[in-house]
Amino acid sequence: MTAPEGRPGGEGGCVLCDTDGGLLLHRAACWRLIRATDMPGFPALYRVVWNAHVAELSDLSEVERRECMDVVATVERVMRLHLPQAKINLAALGNVVPHLHWHLIARFGWDSRFPAPVWAPAQREADAARLADLALRLPALDAALRAALQ
Amino acid sequence: MTAPEGRPGGEGGCVLCDTDGGLLLHRAACWRLIRATDMPGFPALYRVVWNAHVAELSDLSEVERRECMDVVATVERVMRLHLPQAKINLAALGNVVPHLHWHLIARFGWDSRFPAPVWAPAQREADAARLADLALRLPALDAALRAALQ
Repeated sequence: MTAPEGRPGGEGGCVLCDTDGGLLLHRAACWRLIRATDMPGFPALYRVVWNAHVAELSDLSEVERRECMDVVATVERVMRLHLPQAKINLAALGNVVPHLHWHLIARFGWDSRFPAPVWAPAQREADAARLADLALRLPALDAALRAALQ
Repeated sequence: MTAPEGRPGGEGGCVLCDTDGGLLLHRAACWRLIRATDMPGFPALYRVVWNAHVAELSDLSEVERRECMDVVATVERVMRLHLPQAKINLAALGNVVPHLHWHLIARFGWDSRFPAPVWAPAQREADAARLADLALRLPALDAALRAALQ
């Protein structure tokens, strides 16, 4: 099979075709939910990954897009329930990995960049105690997300 | 009327309640499309703003959310048609202005930050000739967006 143009990685591979892309919480036919651990200081970071290698939201059919965004909204709702102080940031960028994936990132006034986006330069050290407390909440949040997506 | 908590600006005002938020291209009952001019170097930047003051996508009903994301997908599709070399970035952050708005940003390998997000530090000067060419395409893109959203 010829890899679609734009797949990053060696020999045309795509990291989101070749791997789950993080801690797999749920896999459905068309999408999966992972928790990502690749952004230090932002532990409550989930990604809804569309399983097929498409680059843009508008590459999906209407039915597929609705399924995708219903999942994003469900994940957001569960995140808000468990992290009531959080502002949720949503983004589908795909500049580095042009395979549709939604970032859902819980943001807090005490994090290293708030109110700037997580990709902006750090403004401060994150509050270590609150960061540790947040990490302790993740197993329950993961479990609630798994349950909500069954 | 008491302003909802978290509205930025003087005396509880919200810039997206009080102003269009950019060049208004289309206003529907529940949302509007604007072209934003507040990010130098990224002229092909549109925002779908939900008219009501809600903070998160999951504050919308299912019907509202589908309407909102259908509009986002339509705008993205028209942007891709007119800017076939672009990668489209989608984001709903709302850390500064917690009033639901979707950023749709056309990205190019020659822009000042690609492949990093637009909020990351600049990696280079944008290609001035290509930036000027992009600006020339915006009137036609604006017109196509207006037509697609009628």
